[in-house]
Amino acid sequence: MENERITKQIAFIREIDGLKHVLRQAYLMNGERRENDAEHTWHIAVMALLLQEHAADAALDLKKTVHMLLVHDLVEIDAGDTFAYDVQGHADKWEREVAAAKRIFGLLPEDQRDAWMALWLEFEEGRTPEAKYALAMDRLHPVLHNFYTEGKAWRAHGVRAEAVRKRMAIVAEAAPGLESFVHSLLEEAVAKGYLLP
Amino acid sequence: MENERITKQIAFIREIDGLKHVLRQAYLMNGERRENDAEHTWHIAVMALLLQEHAADAALDLKKTVHMLLVHDLVEIDAGDTFAYDVQGHADKWEREVAAAKRIFGLLPEDQRDAWMALWLEFEEGRTPEAKYALAMDRLHPVLHNFYTEGKAWRAHGVRAEAVRKRMAIVAEAAPGLESFVHSLLEEAVAKGYLLP
Repeated sequence: MENERITKQIAFIREIDGLKHVLRQAYLMNGERRENDAEHTWHIAVMALLLQEHAADAALDLKKTVHMLLVHDLVEIDAGDTFAYDVQGHADKWEREVAAAKRIFGLLPEDQRDAWMALWLEFEEGRTPEAKYALAMDRLHPVLHNFYTEGKAWRAHGVRAEAVRKRMAIVAEAAPGLESFVHSLLEEAVAKGYLLP
Repeated sequence: MENERITKQIAFIREIDGLKHVLRQAYLMNGERRENDAEHTWHIAVMALLLQEHAADAALDLKKTVHMLLVHDLVEIDAGDTFAYDVQGHADKWEREVAAAKRIFGLLPEDQRDAWMALWLEFEEGRTPEAKYALAMDRLHPVLHNFYTEGKAWRAHGVRAEAVRKRMAIVAEAAPGLESFVHSLLEEAVAKGYLLP
């Protein structure tokens, strides 16, 4: 029984190595190459720990938030990364991601499968303070990458400031302490031509 | 004041992007390319969450462990990755890493600088249950990568089973539930020629 649990846990560890192959649209901050989901996930988990003081909910369960972030993109191993501003790609995104979650979390021992699947769903539903703050980190991160690469992915896709501001609403809600920083950053990005007005 | 804190926190977030450029000796599990520190760090943070039931200390502070893991390799942005079995590279490793920790954590607001630096030191000293369990994850991870790539990095460096077993002592101590799994894995690695006997 113990061995069966370990076998399943190790199979999961092996499987999720695939996250390192899922490329995002954002470039590394030196512009050298596109970032992958594993790198992105590590970075936003650190951000969640670092920026907690700016969160709306001071009683936030940070361990839960970090756990959520560390596994939130695993579905993209099967479903791929859908660019935030790609309307068509979003049409069947949910179906693809649910199937992926069932397969990937399904590798775990039953109790962990259920708990981790629930955590992923909580993130996707975005209703709890933890899910909202986690989403704020997930949304803020590519904005930083774009800003520091002079809008490399924004420019490649002709992204407009209005669309980015809409996605930043969750930062204002879940991490209000960062709102004016984000506002200034986007103003500067437009002024410098990184982002379409 | 608030703005100065955010400026420092964002500078830190930007700086640590460099972890994605620090290459390790281990290959991704499909053998395609070498892994970088950001990917490795993400992976072991998930492992820590997943394998907690095998830890020696059931009362382990998992949030602290994960925080520790997420930042433990940041010093390698300046100091580089030292291969586990490279005796020469280890000679001045400590000095290089302390200087790196001072510079990188020094970007943070003072309270966070002190807290995060302390967490890094706690990991390096390896005395608390959290530090021991974190180290066990950090040591187990490349063994899995080596096993699933048929010993790619082990063979490249002529690593012997004895040296790996010595490094696995911390797994037996801090995550005894995994000891027999690791023992079997190494036996199999030797039998299959992935690792020198």
